[in-house]
Amino acid sequence: MTTTLERLWDEPPARALRWVPGTDLAALDCAGTPGWAGTKPEGEQLVASRAGELADLQERLFADGRSGGNRSVLLVLQGLDTAGKGGIVRHVVGLVDPQGVMHRSFAAPTAEEAAHGYLWRVREALPRPGYLGVFDRSHYEQVLVVRVEGLEPEALWRAHYDEILAFEQEVRGVGTTIVKVALMVSPEEQKARLAERLERRDKYWKYSPGDIDTVRRYPQYVGAYQEMLDRTSTEQSPWHLVPADRKWFARLAVTELLLGALRSLGLGWPPATFDVEAEKARLAAS
Amino acid sequence: MTTTLERLWDEPPARALRWVPGTDLAALDCAGTPGWAGTKPEGEQLVASRAGELADLQERLFADGRSGGNRSVLLVLQGLDTAGKGGIVRHVVGLVDPQGVMHRSFAAPTAEEAAHGYLWRVREALPRPGYLGVFDRSHYEQVLVVRVEGLEPEALWRAHYDEILAFEQEVRGVGTTIVKVALMVSPEEQKARLAERLERRDKYWKYSPGDIDTVRRYPQYVGAYQEMLDRTSTEQSPWHLVPADRKWFARLAVTELLLGALRSLGLGWPPATFDVEAEKARLAAS
Repeated sequence: MTTTLERLWDEPPARALRWVPGTDLAALDCAGTPGWAGTKPEGEQLVASRAGELADLQERLFADGRSGGNRSVLLVLQGLDTAGKGGIVRHVVGLVDPQGVMHRSFAAPTAEEAAHGYLWRVREALPRPGYLGVFDRSHYEQVLVVRVEGLEPEALWRAHYDEILAFEQEVRGVGTTIVKVALMVSPEEQKARLAERLERRDKYWKYSPGDIDTVRRYPQYVGAYQEMLDRTSTEQSPWHLVPADRKWFARLAVTELLLGALRSLGLGWPPATFDVEAEKARLAAS
Repeated sequence: MTTTLERLWDEPPARALRWVPGTDLAALDCAGTPGWAGTKPEGEQLVASRAGELADLQERLFADGRSGGNRSVLLVLQGLDTAGKGGIVRHVVGLVDPQGVMHRSFAAPTAEEAAHGYLWRVREALPRPGYLGVFDRSHYEQVLVVRVEGLEPEALWRAHYDEILAFEQEVRGVGTTIVKVALMVSPEEQKARLAERLERRDKYWKYSPGDIDTVRRYPQYVGAYQEMLDRTSTEQSPWHLVPADRKWFARLAVTELLLGALRSLGLGWPPATFDVEAEKARLAAS
């Protein structure tokens, strides 16, 4: 069932956005809309038109989990400050039933979390069967902020690539489909978004003086993202790189990637585990 | 700012729905719309018109929590099977940003949960500062299903009323506003909703043969709710009784109760903790 709006994708978003190892991340056009030939209003319309199917598939996933199925979906959102991860949770994840969502935002680890190793809190937050898990930042911070801010010696953070690949293999093994999305904003857009937080009284709380350090280290972050993408984009759990200077495009892209992942599960409705006619009779007699 | 639709409340919903200890629960009209003089379409319009303010207040609450505030809101939803708790989470809680929601559904406790005492898993799920917590069932099951199904001797479950009052006092003490809602469906509507689950292939997963036991024990459940309401409705955390045969009314009622609780916090935006002009200059120079 292809709608008119859907046809504005020149190629399927999962293919158009899939990271090709070796691509030069520094050369990315963060204002681009790879694969998408439509306008902003058309993109917004397509997102809105997906709400029903997304909610339906999420409910099927939930029903499957309640009925003994082991499948779940984990959306991993990575991106620099201001890249719009929060807006995606609000506008895309917000399209489905909150009962079926396990959302976790990873800030700097607490002392207890740090003492358990970086994958401990991540494991705790993994979606249970039937759930859509959403990570706002993730285990990948261990090869991003930890690397750029020099929080661990190189030998230590370098070991994380393999650990992460092994971890994700284990997670897939228990039935979780991992959708990895890296959002990239340009340095100009990042500065403009930070500046906006300083112009609006209702945005002050989102600003911290330390944000400027991230701006200054933009090139180092690009280097860390480059290696992360190259080293951890696998056949089973590829990275998708989403240019995020246009918020509407980032939301459209993640909507489509999530929808594609849910569709690929081929979820039906669980069959009755009881005799339907007998239960109707029992209920009528009760 | 009173809108035309708002004026369809004859009295404020928090007052119209507030449990008055000693009221005869068995005499409740579950199809009633206490306090509301409007129609179903008007009720639905009012809910839709609240989305913006609810989302705004929830974001202020979240911002407050991020800025060192200790306030949070906990919505406790109790109700018999089919009372529509899930629909309320989907349609009312779904109006706000999922990032600010901590939702927990309480099923029969696991062995580990049971070994820790019934308040353990409840404490674990309490909203952190800035969050809207949502309990689908709660600690109150310990005086409802536990009592009716005879899972504990009377002396034990009777002690829970006081334990719960002490627990809620402690929770309020750390800054949480508790909004307690009991949804009541009539036995006829309950049977009709269960029958619907047996008619629709996409609803089988919501049905279990044990649901008929609940139908048969409807009067016992009413008795257990009666005592729960009488014993645990306090000045600081009163129960609200919401007739739930009309789903649209239950959703309207909970929307209004939640909105009232958020409004009562008088939330502004956190002030800047830095020199705004100095940061603008630093950012421009970065």
